[in-house]
Amino acid sequence: MSTDWERIYEHAIEWAYEAGTIIRDSFRKQLTIETKSNADDLVTNMDREVENFLIDRVRKYYPDHQILGEEGSGDDVQSLEGTVWIIDPIDGTMNFVHQQTNFAISIAVYHEGIGKVGVIYSVVNDEMFHARAGNGAYLNKLELPRLEHVELDKSIIALNATWLTNNKRMNPSLLLPIVQSCRGTRSYGSAAIELAFVAAGRLDAYITMRLSPWDFAAGKILIEEVGGTITNLDGEPLNLLDRNSIFAGASDLHEHILEKYLTNGEG
Amino acid sequence: MSTDWERIYEHAIEWAYEAGTIIRDSFRKQLTIETKSNADDLVTNMDREVENFLIDRVRKYYPDHQILGEEGSGDDVQSLEGTVWIIDPIDGTMNFVHQQTNFAISIAVYHEGIGKVGVIYSVVNDEMFHARAGNGAYLNKLELPRLEHVELDKSIIALNATWLTNNKRMNPSLLLPIVQSCRGTRSYGSAAIELAFVAAGRLDAYITMRLSPWDFAAGKILIEEVGGTITNLDGEPLNLLDRNSIFAGASDLHEHILEKYLTNGEG
Repeated sequence: MSTDWERIYEHAIEWAYEAGTIIRDSFRKQLTIETKSNADDLVTNMDREVENFLIDRVRKYYPDHQILGEEGSGDDVQSLEGTVWIIDPIDGTMNFVHQQTNFAISIAVYHEGIGKVGVIYSVVNDEMFHARAGNGAYLNKLELPRLEHVELDKSIIALNATWLTNNKRMNPSLLLPIVQSCRGTRSYGSAAIELAFVAAGRLDAYITMRLSPWDFAAGKILIEEVGGTITNLDGEPLNLLDRNSIFAGASDLHEHILEKYLTNGEG
Repeated sequence: MSTDWERIYEHAIEWAYEAGTIIRDSFRKQLTIETKSNADDLVTNMDREVENFLIDRVRKYYPDHQILGEEGSGDDVQSLEGTVWIIDPIDGTMNFVHQQTNFAISIAVYHEGIGKVGVIYSVVNDEMFHARAGNGAYLNKLELPRLEHVELDKSIIALNATWLTNNKRMNPSLLLPIVQSCRGTRSYGSAAIELAFVAAGRLDAYITMRLSPWDFAAGKILIEEVGGTITNLDGEPLNLLDRNSIFAGASDLHEHILEKYLTNGEG
């Protein structure tokens, strides 16, 4: 029997909405905050509860699928063979804790390494970005147009100010000319939202130094569905089983920045 | 007869909602975009239409009040004597044009130079931040608590990456240590939203180099109403009739950053 991708797509959207309701309800309750590996990496009971909710649904309906999740309740996924769900229950945990907004649920489904379904739900703003590969990408019920050509000096780029300070991942002097040449920069503190905004044309590009697969797996599907490009900062394909630097954007702009600013013409 | 501030407060909120409806309806129509002084300073027919709508209302109900507005249809306000409305019809025009979200209507009412009513309406996310001086600040119907003490290393600061590049307004080397010491930075591209987020505790501080009175007049009232501090980058009071650098935040954090990072102990 062939896989019913439409059913999987509808399930991913439905479960993201249900998870959103769980989260909104939680704002009335006390929030327990733990520190994971360091102060910048907050984890809450809500992350775990939402991840468990999503994993339970996948296991019930698709028992032969694998699950790769941020909070570690999923499977120990070592390869992309078969069908793999890649889930971030709350992307933008720092926003979740500090702001109670600007965080998202990210759900991606890959089959033999190929993106099939991508869902990013910005819960408090009630914006559901969703795509089934080959069938278009949507923001709520509105189909997103293909990304248009944009010049760097008219572009808005998401880039966290942190990467312009001395840091161990990136030489700021490579990024500074990009910031000076674009029209404006933004930073929202949720990779899933930033990638969804690229897909929606709200941002023309997004640059960051280190994301895990659950941070970008759904965004990759959305962006590619509207004709955008997403690679690492060297222009290489992303590894869905490891951390990557990320450079996403409208394809022409991506190529221009990569060649002129990031690889010195070697790209 | 004494001024009926409750009525003015209710009017400011009501008119912001009405202006929001005008803007939302406009997304179905064609948008005419003009370039004002340069490519980074976009102005749309919608800015003008909304400003005219708000000015008409103020003139009808409060003919003896002065109006200071971004688009120049207001009065040539030379002093803060009497009652002055300070209006930005669409703060975050670049977001309005590129994103159709993350922009706000900002309305402030000052009397003899003292902030009385501040309203910031983030239209697409339907978040109404509002305060009547002395009566508390609100997000929609929720009263905002007073800002709590926060340490720099646990703070989220709004700061545009542009100010970390070489620019004519600020030495980036003063800001870099702040970015490296805080927990995270954000940038939303709308000063009114960034100031409202400080008032709501979503951001702990906001730093920027040059804002006009209509960009910060309402935010100032909201922030002061929850016990926060807003000054220029030298720690001096803001001039409501001129451009200012802006540094807003929870009061303890504001004092700490000002003394340790911005004025080298001279503040």
